[in-house]
Amino acid sequence: MSFSPLIRQLIDALRILPGVGQKTAQRMALHLLERDRSGGLRLSQALARAMDGVGYCQQCRTLSEDALCPQCSDPRRDDSLLCVVEGPLDVFAVEQTGYRGRYFVLKGHLSPLDGLGPEAIGIPELEQHIARGRFSEVILATNPTVEGEATAHYIAQLLAPRGLSLTRIAHGVPLGGELELVDGGTLAHAMAGRRPIGG
Amino acid sequence: MSFSPLIRQLIDALRILPGVGQKTAQRMALHLLERDRSGGLRLSQALARAMDGVGYCQQCRTLSEDALCPQCSDPRRDDSLLCVVEGPLDVFAVEQTGYRGRYFVLKGHLSPLDGLGPEAIGIPELEQHIARGRFSEVILATNPTVEGEATAHYIAQLLAPRGLSLTRIAHGVPLGGELELVDGGTLAHAMAGRRPIGG
Ligand SMILES: [Zn+2]
Ligand SMILES: [Zn+2]
Repeated sequence: MSFSPLIRQLIDALRILPGVGQKTAQRMALHLLERDRSGGLRLSQALARAMDGVGYCQQCRTLSEDALCPQCSDPRRDDSLLCVVEGPLDVFAVEQTGYRGRYFVLKGHLSPLDGLGPEAIGIPELEQHIARGRFSEVILATNPTVEGEATAHYIAQLLAPRGLSLTRIAHGVPLGGELELVDGGTLAHAMAGRRPIGG
Repeated sequence: MSFSPLIRQLIDALRILPGVGQKTAQRMALHLLERDRSGGLRLSQALARAMDGVGYCQQCRTLSEDALCPQCSDPRRDDSLLCVVEGPLDVFAVEQTGYRGRYFVLKGHLSPLDGLGPEAIGIPELEQHIARGRFSEVILATNPTVEGEATAHYIAQLLAPRGLSLTRIAHGVPLGGELELVDGGTLAHAMAGRRPIGG
């Protein structure tokens, strides 16, 4: 008992956020109720608008409410470079390095044990996207994990016949880590040190 | 750039939550968008309902959308015991000890340097509440911090002429800590070991 129903429901709902347990959810709920109701209402609206309005970019397949995301709709970017990543947060991470080419966003990595093959993560769409574009280099920037490496090598083999330059970000990124957690300097170094990847 | 406007607004709005910085907010936003949109909508509704609907219990002044909170509306509780705490989270913490008397919830503690005197934290209302009730014991369960101790002693002096039993939770709770962070066992022990407090 002890909290009234609306407060209990708010605490329960906050627990859907990753990393938020019961005590943290209680502190968040009480903080908003006691000190920041206008912030709480703003968060409510931002959630409703984003959950209802955000879909996927038609070109790179990152999350976006517009048909084209900010990266795809920017005419000043280099159309000859394509950077392939596992998810939208990786786009943000790679942007911090100063990269100004295009992107393609997979739905994670190949994971045969979980039944996630090439179709499940969008590799056919990647192939179509490359066939339609005029890329000279495809940078495989999947995570430096076992699965990310395997995904990069699978794509490299698939694209080898196209005569593109296929590169992999250098192992400046710590092995076993996740790209989105790497600091910008390390990732910039890894981007600069990218090298051809064998099919 | 890199995130579309609705996603950027969601990330900004999530940062109002205590302890949530930019990276955590990004992970939360993308988690909801990619894996739990229905949870995100449920959180949006829970926030809107709580921010608009929750006020204060007329009796104990804890947060509640009803005129009386669950503790005040429960007829089976002991009307002769009153537990005075600094905030709604402390009610939750004291409930875990098995306490089944009544509560009065202050708005924090006395803090003269911040201009927070007895009126600002609701001590006149506490006096009225005690005058109207038929309490035989008032348990001062403010935080075991310097400010919480000072607040307990101030209230004890104020109430001394009333001939009530005035007790303070025992110093089983770690000095300098916050009540809501103490584990239930320690707090139960401190409640059991409460002792009279001099005016
Ligand atoms: Zn795009
Ligand atoms: Zn109440």
